[in-house]
Amino acid sequence: MPVTNPTACLLVIGNEVLSGRTQDANIRFLAIGLGEIGIPLREVRVIPDVAQIIIDTVNEVRAKFDYVFTTGGIGPTHDDITSECVAAAFGVPWEPHPEAWARMEKTYPPGGFNTARQRMATMPRGATLIENALSVAPGFQIGNVYVMAGVPRVMQSMWEWLAPRLHGGPKIVSRAVHALGLPEGVIAEGLATIQAKHPNVDLGSYPFYRPSGNGVALVAKGTDAVTVETVIAEVTALIAGLGKVPIQGEPDS
Amino acid sequence: MPVTNPTACLLVIGNEVLSGRTQDANIRFLAIGLGEIGIPLREVRVIPDVAQIIIDTVNEVRAKFDYVFTTGGIGPTHDDITSECVAAAFGVPWEPHPEAWARMEKTYPPGGFNTARQRMATMPRGATLIENALSVAPGFQIGNVYVMAGVPRVMQSMWEWLAPRLHGGPKIVSRAVHALGLPEGVIAEGLATIQAKHPNVDLGSYPFYRPSGNGVALVAKGTDAVTVETVIAEVTALIAGLGKVPIQGEPDS
Repeated sequence: MPVTNPTACLLVIGNEVLSGRTQDANIRFLAIGLGEIGIPLREVRVIPDVAQIIIDTVNEVRAKFDYVFTTGGIGPTHDDITSECVAAAFGVPWEPHPEAWARMEKTYPPGGFNTARQRMATMPRGATLIENALSVAPGFQIGNVYVMAGVPRVMQSMWEWLAPRLHGGPKIVSRAVHALGLPEGVIAEGLATIQAKHPNVDLGSYPFYRPSGNGVALVAKGTDAVTVETVIAEVTALIAGLGKVPIQGEPDS
Repeated sequence: MPVTNPTACLLVIGNEVLSGRTQDANIRFLAIGLGEIGIPLREVRVIPDVAQIIIDTVNEVRAKFDYVFTTGGIGPTHDDITSECVAAAFGVPWEPHPEAWARMEKTYPPGGFNTARQRMATMPRGATLIENALSVAPGFQIGNVYVMAGVPRVMQSMWEWLAPRLHGGPKIVSRAVHALGLPEGVIAEGLATIQAKHPNVDLGSYPFYRPSGNGVALVAKGTDAVTVETVIAEVTALIAGLGKVPIQGEPDS
């Protein structure tokens, strides 16, 4: 039965993000995608390719959140250990997945489906496949854990397949208003009053510094569109009352 | 006394990263900066502006890692609660910091140092300031926790001041070699053999897909430069043995 207000955690698995070699591009993509289907992302962890850390973290967060998504560590090389660690976390064997195995065996030329590539068709017992249009190697789901590729375009292709199959809660509505030349410190007290009146809306304040001018963007988020609009109307009036021009929407980048 | 092989954890605090509104730019900057001073980043957590989550997370990771860095949540608005949460985590009062208070009071015109801005001069008792050249509001350190701004250019300015004052371990040396037209699945078994021979070097394999051609980048990292060079030499020979041209360094982006 679908959960009413589901929550999600993302595990970004890979030394390359922790060393700074790679600029992560998956957090923001999934944060937006999850918000769109009403499964707000509540935590992200970036962890290294170390078996015990992956196992312990998967077990901690799958008990804590309704959905856990992982990116990274499902390729053919020695540092790709996500799949076997997820099996260990669930206490199930890590074994050839018949469908993934058959598909990959068929794809490669004779001898090409070697030991390394066979790792990509080896999964926790009971896993179901997450398809993607770009690569022959699938991701997989077991329990509430969804294991996806780390390469952004492959992950995104898996997400396109997966997203319509997930059961989200109410979609989160987001509205913004901004003002040029308005320091956060001047509007802060008024914002706190508005936030206190509407605890079901998340009102965020984000200063920006741009060649076109500095200012602050105020963003209201929530599942009740009417209250979100009310909050934005109150913030708009607050900005005007402080002698600045409220501009609906995000500042142009 | 400085730790021999210190480790670091970064807490990115802010709903705006979890909602996808903001593309994080701090993780990679600090990952690289920490590597350069020999304090490898071992975990990142992105957490929301929720007091109990911040308090619990700070307490968990400050016990687990030698250094904890936080970004975000130290501005003047109602959603900036990092500072008071760090005080709660340490079990100390959250009170005006005399030096920060005096400095900020002097900066604003009469009446400008209002209740909201006073929050930025309110810190855990015993905190010492982290200076920055860009904004009047400082970050702070308490115990092994370093609290910095979330706006990247302010955070970077704080880091410039802070980095030379931290006690790092041996610098991590990184060397790369890449090959065009070489699938990971073909080189994987050879890489695993090299990695097994040199457990003190972290050998990573990163496929790339670029207009100029697909291929794989192999990256060796470790504190012993000689072993890192040995590993790269062995990987170079492995690539040549597979009939491809080893190219030293990272692929051009």
